[in-house]
Amino acid sequence: MTSDNHIRADWIAVDWGTSNLRAWAMATDGSVLAEATSDQGMSTLTAADYEPALLGLIADWLGTDVTDVQISGMAGSRQGWIESPYSSVPCPPVSGPGVLAPTADPRLNVRIVPGLSQSTPADVMRGEETQIAGFLSSNPGFDGVLCLPGTHSKWVEISAAEVISFRTFMTGELFALLAKQSVLRHSLGTGWDEAAFEAAVAEAQTHPEAMARTLFGLRAESLLADLPPSEATARLSGTLIGAELAAARPYWLGRPVALIGASKLVDVYAAALGLQGLIPKRCDAGQMTRLGLATARNSAIDPAPTLH
Amino acid sequence: MTSDNHIRADWIAVDWGTSNLRAWAMATDGSVLAEATSDQGMSTLTAADYEPALLGLIADWLGTDVTDVQISGMAGSRQGWIESPYSSVPCPPVSGPGVLAPTADPRLNVRIVPGLSQSTPADVMRGEETQIAGFLSSNPGFDGVLCLPGTHSKWVEISAAEVISFRTFMTGELFALLAKQSVLRHSLGTGWDEAAFEAAVAEAQTHPEAMARTLFGLRAESLLADLPPSEATARLSGTLIGAELAAARPYWLGRPVALIGASKLVDVYAAALGLQGLIPKRCDAGQMTRLGLATARNSAIDPAPTLH
Repeated sequence: MTSDNHIRADWIAVDWGTSNLRAWAMATDGSVLAEATSDQGMSTLTAADYEPALLGLIADWLGTDVTDVQISGMAGSRQGWIESPYSSVPCPPVSGPGVLAPTADPRLNVRIVPGLSQSTPADVMRGEETQIAGFLSSNPGFDGVLCLPGTHSKWVEISAAEVISFRTFMTGELFALLAKQSVLRHSLGTGWDEAAFEAAVAEAQTHPEAMARTLFGLRAESLLADLPPSEATARLSGTLIGAELAAARPYWLGRPVALIGASKLVDVYAAALGLQGLIPKRCDAGQMTRLGLATARNSAIDPAPTLH
Repeated sequence: MTSDNHIRADWIAVDWGTSNLRAWAMATDGSVLAEATSDQGMSTLTAADYEPALLGLIADWLGTDVTDVQISGMAGSRQGWIESPYSSVPCPPVSGPGVLAPTADPRLNVRIVPGLSQSTPADVMRGEETQIAGFLSSNPGFDGVLCLPGTHSKWVEISAAEVISFRTFMTGELFALLAKQSVLRHSLGTGWDEAAFEAAVAEAQTHPEAMARTLFGLRAESLLADLPPSEATARLSGTLIGAELAAARPYWLGRPVALIGASKLVDVYAAALGLQGLIPKRCDAGQMTRLGLATARNSAIDPAPTLH
């Protein structure tokens, strides 16, 4: 590699989840100079493994002086690099750069953003708070509801730049378990039947108790009536997302809603919300994460004036 | 082994499921002479493996002449020993001994009972039809509803000695996936909190949409409020069984209900139904299977008179 190809990051943004890790070399103006990913998520690491795993991804982006590395996600959990204790809602999604992580390499200044907790009903998030902060930095004054679909989908009430309350749904994890490990795995496949998805969402809205009895029906129709795998997949998804929407109704009913997530998942949730007459704003999760990490870092570099 | 210890079965009853196999050496009077089990369920076998797997369990019970072996369960599925095609409801649960399975050993006369299918809504059972036949042989004239809790729980409407309709719920499979493979596995444990179970069942009856939002709450309470594992386990069970009862309400509301299953599971379902004001009759699954297989075999030996 010649020095012409060497990328020097002004700072580094990292989204460190349970099963993988995504890092961006950032310029001060917010543009992305380079991106790198790895499967060294929290579940594969002990505390001592984090610095080598990080350096393995970003060493080429470092200069000789200190570089800020701003992290969000499960790296800040009790089983992660170092615990970054939850902030309790109601509170701003991100209030500062977070906890300093111990490092041996003097070129690293690593900070991990805290997650959010709620006492009643009990709930937690790690990573989504940073996406929420990114959303609010580009949508100041937003008063409404954010939905962040994923393994553990979050519904979040926002008012006056604070997270007021939130609720988690295991929709993505249930879908993965049912699709890959239950008896339904024999009946599902690639492809997507949009009409079947919409009918399943509508059924879940009308009969919120339907989920428990709908699932095995997919297997039986597959055995008896050659249910197409694309229809079975779409109906499983529609049944689970429909159940989530039915349970999250107090959040979205009559409120402005924005979706933050991976683009395919955002498409699916937007279609389901569209059936309820909502046209949600749509945002990319990676972009919101980078904006939120920039907010977290800037709050340390350029603190608001205080009275002391 | 001396000849004094040799058990000679009058016939042999077999419950051959997906993950295991249970055989009983039967006397003509219905008493059990011996019992044997193995983990050579349908999912581990090809068609050619069935006869050796069976002989491995029952060879000691055979004499020199032919012995009837009457089988129910997944051995009769398309992926089993030989397909015993479904009977369509409404129909009696068992109408005869079923399909003759191919065997090399001349001492074996093997028959596999068909399962039941329903076209609208699509549903299937294999094995439970035999327990239902056993129940009806000891409760002739029963008009009401049977619940057979398990991996795939069945609710079955019985009238005039026929299965009128039925519906399957994946409650047991969902519980196993969530308890062993989801993020909730960190929060569950042995032990049982009956009051927590009852509260979760009641919540599911009042708010049938609650399941989707209740599950992750167990994980969050475990992280934030040291939720006892025995309470988490009971609440997960209560949430899933409560959702099943809410969806199965058209079956049990205002009808006599009998439970057929393993005794611990029957206890749990009886408690949940008790909260709805029902006192179900309780039956052991193994005993109902043997009675049902005897009914199937006897219908071949001693057919009802016909007009030809």
